[in-house]
Amino acid sequence: MNGAEALVRTLAECGVDVCFTNPGTSEMHFVAALDRLDKIYCVLALQENVATGAADGYARMMGRPAATLLHTGPGFGNGLANVHNAKKARVPMVNIVGEHATYHIKHDAPLTSDIEAIVSPVSHWVKTSMTADDVPIDAARAVAAAGRWPGQIATLILPADCAWNDTVYLGVPILPDPPEKVDPADVDAVVKALKSGKKSVIFMTGEILTEPGLTLAGKVRAATGVDLMTPTSNRRIDRGVGRVPVMRLPYVVDLALETLQDYEQIILLGTTQPVSFFAYPNKPSLMAPEGCDIINLAGPEQNTLMALELLVDALDAAELTPEVATRADPIDFDAIQGEITPDTIAAALAAVMPEDAIIVDESITTGRAFFPQTVGAPPHSWLQITGGAIGDGLPLAVGAGIACIDRKVIVLQADGSAMYTNQALWTMAREELDVTILLFSNRCYRILEGEMKNVGVEEPGQVAKDLFSLSDPDIDWCLMANSMGVNAAKVTTAEGLVPAMETALEFEGPFLVEIEF
Amino acid sequence: MNGAEALVRTLAECGVDVCFTNPGTSEMHFVAALDRLDKIYCVLALQENVATGAADGYARMMGRPAATLLHTGPGFGNGLANVHNAKKARVPMVNIVGEHATYHIKHDAPLTSDIEAIVSPVSHWVKTSMTADDVPIDAARAVAAAGRWPGQIATLILPADCAWNDTVYLGVPILPDPPEKVDPADVDAVVKALKSGKKSVIFMTGEILTEPGLTLAGKVRAATGVDLMTPTSNRRIDRGVGRVPVMRLPYVVDLALETLQDYEQIILLGTTQPVSFFAYPNKPSLMAPEGCDIINLAGPEQNTLMALELLVDALDAAELTPEVATRADPIDFDAIQGEITPDTIAAALAAVMPEDAIIVDESITTGRAFFPQTVGAPPHSWLQITGGAIGDGLPLAVGAGIACIDRKVIVLQADGSAMYTNQALWTMAREELDVTILLFSNRCYRILEGEMKNVGVEEPGQVAKDLFSLSDPDIDWCLMANSMGVNAAKVTTAEGLVPAMETALEFEGPFLVEIEF
Repeated sequence: MNGAEALVRTLAECGVDVCFTNPGTSEMHFVAALDRLDKIYCVLALQENVATGAADGYARMMGRPAATLLHTGPGFGNGLANVHNAKKARVPMVNIVGEHATYHIKHDAPLTSDIEAIVSPVSHWVKTSMTADDVPIDAARAVAAAGRWPGQIATLILPADCAWNDTVYLGVPILPDPPEKVDPADVDAVVKALKSGKKSVIFMTGEILTEPGLTLAGKVRAATGVDLMTPTSNRRIDRGVGRVPVMRLPYVVDLALETLQDYEQIILLGTTQPVSFFAYPNKPSLMAPEGCDIINLAGPEQNTLMALELLVDALDAAELTPEVATRADPIDFDAIQGEITPDTIAAALAAVMPEDAIIVDESITTGRAFFPQTVGAPPHSWLQITGGAIGDGLPLAVGAGIACIDRKVIVLQADGSAMYTNQALWTMAREELDVTILLFSNRCYRILEGEMKNVGVEEPGQVAKDLFSLSDPDIDWCLMANSMGVNAAKVTTAEGLVPAMETALEFEGPFLVEIEF
Repeated sequence: MNGAEALVRTLAECGVDVCFTNPGTSEMHFVAALDRLDKIYCVLALQENVATGAADGYARMMGRPAATLLHTGPGFGNGLANVHNAKKARVPMVNIVGEHATYHIKHDAPLTSDIEAIVSPVSHWVKTSMTADDVPIDAARAVAAAGRWPGQIATLILPADCAWNDTVYLGVPILPDPPEKVDPADVDAVVKALKSGKKSVIFMTGEILTEPGLTLAGKVRAATGVDLMTPTSNRRIDRGVGRVPVMRLPYVVDLALETLQDYEQIILLGTTQPVSFFAYPNKPSLMAPEGCDIINLAGPEQNTLMALELLVDALDAAELTPEVATRADPIDFDAIQGEITPDTIAAALAAVMPEDAIIVDESITTGRAFFPQTVGAPPHSWLQITGGAIGDGLPLAVGAGIACIDRKVIVLQADGSAMYTNQALWTMAREELDVTILLFSNRCYRILEGEMKNVGVEEPGQVAKDLFSLSDPDIDWCLMANSMGVNAAKVTTAEGLVPAMETALEFEGPFLVEIEF
């Protein structure tokens, strides 16, 4: 058995059953082992940011890591942005990065780079195997590191000779280190705060936004009237009819400040205090109003679920029934007419969302109305771009589609962001993933037009206009999708939205709806 | 004047006149300054690897750096692979990377990352400005660092508040540090070696592959009979009729070993000794035969041109006439028929190449016959992917096209590599660049099929086959090009090659020829 085979066997034994990859020469022994053993399902991506984003989406839905297999430092570099997004979401991921044979590195061949240096800024755990015997135990440790609560990025660098030399070892599953304990004193402090009568909000993210976290949070609300709010971007929120609804902090700084202005206490659960996405001259970085108390119930590395359980017990709220979202009023289809706007798109989306959909939201400016309008939609999961690095929507959808073959994936996709990783369309076609892409073609980086105003430029000149515009030439998204084997249709009026979405949703497989407005 | 304006003015004053960019919120003040001052030509790329590759191509043709403007750590990450390629080519480049305001970084907003850590592995020079007053002097230093012989990657990180705060300073051009001197003793040693009667080759790359380097090398050959050879990949070779021809080391290890097997002396000029791209079990990393003397004339950081001048003088060869390439025999068009193969493509290319073309070669396996077949073509420049990170061909063509609006750019483009940065097609259309793309659609990573054999797998199974295949679905490159505003035509027979290439070359603007075989 060579090191590559020991690696595949160990990963599979540790529960890694999917590998998103674009391999190169230095990974050929690993590919040969994947091929021979056929224990891990391999998904080809035509650019690495698709592979890493897909691994992220897979883990968000499965609660355990997928592997990526990437080709040396530049290959990892191509996928770095979506590893960054996954790291910010605290999603488990195991990256295998091929490296030159150990003795070859010193000769500085063209693809030689300092791989540890490239991967480290976006990895929680990094190791380079030095012999074939190291590989299986390093692999088991990588999976354990990835699985550490609430999820970590583990990157194992695999020199080619460690893959092709022989070993007799196999790795066995290692239990991840447990989450950090919750301090009962912190729970007591929160109980006291919640009983103080001050206006309060629990600001929370992570595991807590799926079951059983949501129900526990709902019981705390039922007992105390506290509000529940998430950061702007979250790795996954399970929501819709029957689920405890949560508010979301707006992206736009002024709206965020307004949303939080009346709170006297912010209780943190699995996150840090509200911070603006970017800094602006003469605006604060921190969004909490002056004098507002910031109280930590449990940080991201602590067991946020246990913290909520303790809180529910301390409040004697275990038997309370949380308030959940109810079915929204039937959509008035006649109201979805005229110009296509974010509001008409949101109404159409709410009208057609099927049961148990997975919504991948990289809608940026177009999507600001989507979240509130879908609170009463059928139950669904909502995935967001968590690190601000655009180009995550289509890849997340690939991973979610591989993870949940029985759930419809709907991507709310801004055009500028979609261009970053358009190669994901090809993987959707090859894997016949059941994905509907709503492609919002406003032919500009609309968000930057707004940000330009924020820096005091009311009337940008031609240089700036050109840098914000995706026109000249316009991108034809139907042709783009067709070129990679994905069916597509274009809609240019609000009346066309619901029929086009229904057509796409009825199709089993990837279908792109270009929404031009 | 704010820091951003001081930066634009300083860059322009230091000779930077083009900026390839995909900006984000943290760069808005810089964009506003670019817009207001209109001193630097801005080119929008829809993914950062297009921007960095274009800056590389621009510098290769102009001999001076372009700027890139990139959005924080993940934005740089997206462009890292082509910065790696540029670094390996020792091309000058000035990257401006936007960062959060200095006081905002500690709050760890979603886009926060360790930017210095991300950029450092592929940069020779890195600096983060800490105040608006720092910005102009840092910018002047960055340009000087980039210009240091033979070219360096300089990355300046620009926190948003350094861009928006005021300064009264402007930077002025700083002379780059000079190249390292050549040691006359090294020249003497080479003279002695060349007169020894041993079979010798000068192994050389960099500046020396354009004029006046080529002519000097030709004089050395005329005086001594020494062979002239370049590494497999080079940043630019000027070649064709009237130019001193050079051999190129093959990529395939066995061929490289065979090519070098009879040499008793390898003289290094601007590079290190021949090394294989990858290591393979039971094959050497170093390509020189046993017992071959490796003699250093001048390393990459030394003045290779001066070294050649000294060598020419010492050999009394200044008045000799170097042998140059002569016009190849007229192409027998009737021979270009039947199946499309690398050989028929090469013959067709040689037949249609216009005077003064810029050839961007990311043809990988398809292109192995192109180089020898075009030695007698009209004068042209040949640019290659230098760091082994695929996805550089289309971006290099963007940069070369912006640099040389009066020269036809021809991209020899493998399909798998083209997918990595297909977004470059859009920039070609917007900028109306005079680029002909010969897209070799063999629908597989052909190189990996060969590498799989190298690891001993004669008959790969379905898993490996799927990972090497770009079929299922086939990519329709004409639709892909059309979707981004680029004209295209498909050719499927050898007889169609010349007419299709001629059509594309006659078109003023980007035109893609999908060559399916």
